[in-house]
Amino acid sequence: MLSARNQFAGTIQAVKLGQVMAEVIIKIAPKIEVVSLISRTSAENLKLKKGDKVTAIIKSTEVMVAKD
Amino acid sequence: MLSARNQFAGTIQAVKLGQVMAEVIIKIAPKIEVVSLISRTSAENLKLKKGDKVTAIIKSTEVMVAKD
Amino acid sequence: MLSARNQFAGTIQAVKLGQVMAEVIIKIAPKIEVVSLISRTSAENLKLKKGDKVTAIIKSTEVMVAKD
Amino acid sequence: MLSARNQFAGTIQAVKLGQVMAEVIIKIAPKIEVVSLISRTSAENLKLKKGDKVTAIIKSTEVMVAKD
Amino acid sequence: MLSARNQFAGTIQAVKLGQVMAEVIIKIAPKIEVVSLISRTSAENLKLKKGDKVTAIIKSTEVMVAKD
Amino acid sequence: MLSARNQFAGTIQAVKLGQVMAEVIIKIAPKIEVVSLISRTSAENLKLKKGDKVTAIIKSTEVMVAKD
Repeated sequence: MLSARNQFAGTIQAVKLGQVMAEVIIKIAPKIEVVSLISRTSAENLKLKKGDKVTAIIKSTEVMVAKD
Repeated sequence: MLSARNQFAGTIQAVKLGQVMAEVIIKIAPKIEVVSLISRTSAENLKLKKGDKVTAIIKSTEVMVAKD
Repeated sequence: MLSARNQFAGTIQAVKLGQVMAEVIIKIAPKIEVVSLISRTSAENLKLKKGDKVTAIIKSTEVMVAKD
Repeated sequence: MLSARNQFAGTIQAVKLGQVMAEVIIKIAPKIEVVSLISRTSAENLKLKKGDKVTAIIKSTEVMVAKD
Repeated sequence: MLSARNQFAGTIQAVKLGQVMAEVIIKIAPKIEVVSLISRTSAENLKLKKGDKVTAIIKSTEVMVAKD
Repeated sequence: MLSARNQFAGTIQAVKLGQVMAEVIIKIAPKIEVVSLISRTSAENLKLKKGDKVTAIIKSTEVMVAKD
């Protein structure tokens, strides 16, 4: 069990690999996509590819709030 | 327009104030809540309270991915 | 209104694009430059280029303090 | 020498201590203040107090960009 | 399997609870302790206490490098 | 003296350079390696290379805890 309280199950829509970094787009609800930037090595270690069932995880200290 | 690509509209479910920090819980979809830890001063500046329409914002470099 | 309390208006000095990431340098005062690392997609979405008036935004939990 | 490229010399304007966290406000230019949230223990270890000459340090991956 | 590449097994040395935040100190090697600041609710959900076997997890984008 | 409480002395095992980012692997104990993702410019400014004695630095708010 992980202390990070934001854990959203979803499906990978796209993976883009750079030399050092990788971008992963995960659909977690009908109109909600989460974008993740991780190392290319992590994306390869986890063999991330379109259609994979994954969980997006975010530490609560990283979440901001905007209000009109 | 903000560079952070994760911006999720929702409604505040709860606000808890400490001396320095505040915890804000935001419902962004029927079964998806986001927890945010910000300064108490920010929570007060934005007058955050239960029922407020807000947006949770997360920089993509802060999102991890887990896969079974 | 955004909860992040560090918001510094400035002018873009340089944008460098990689495959996944982009580096943006923003002058916020006569001798103060802020360096930002965001996704290339964000830099393209915002059409960031030298001379643009922008705001550098930093969540307070990300700021460290050093003292001699 | 530290890899973090955002290092801004300034003077502490205020320190607020909670049980676990502390908030430090640092003036880095005539109209620019930086807010930092660190542990109370760090604030005590560094003996941070109003008037101290300090440096605010921010990793570039933590800086977002907003453009109208 | 989690994308975060820094995962260090250790033993909790101390837990300090504030109103919103908690500080957890974890020994990961004979002379190496890691300090973690998480929400009090997470510390309670995981029932963290001295002596617990845990893993400290850090996303690689959060690690800086200093060199003399 | 820096507020970040996680400071681990070690030796660089590998440096990988991308266009914008760089990955640095640092051994801090016999079986403990830390991975750092910083800007390529920082890696070049610090002339980071295999064998360098460096310190990995992590702000405590960035450390999560997992427990079985």
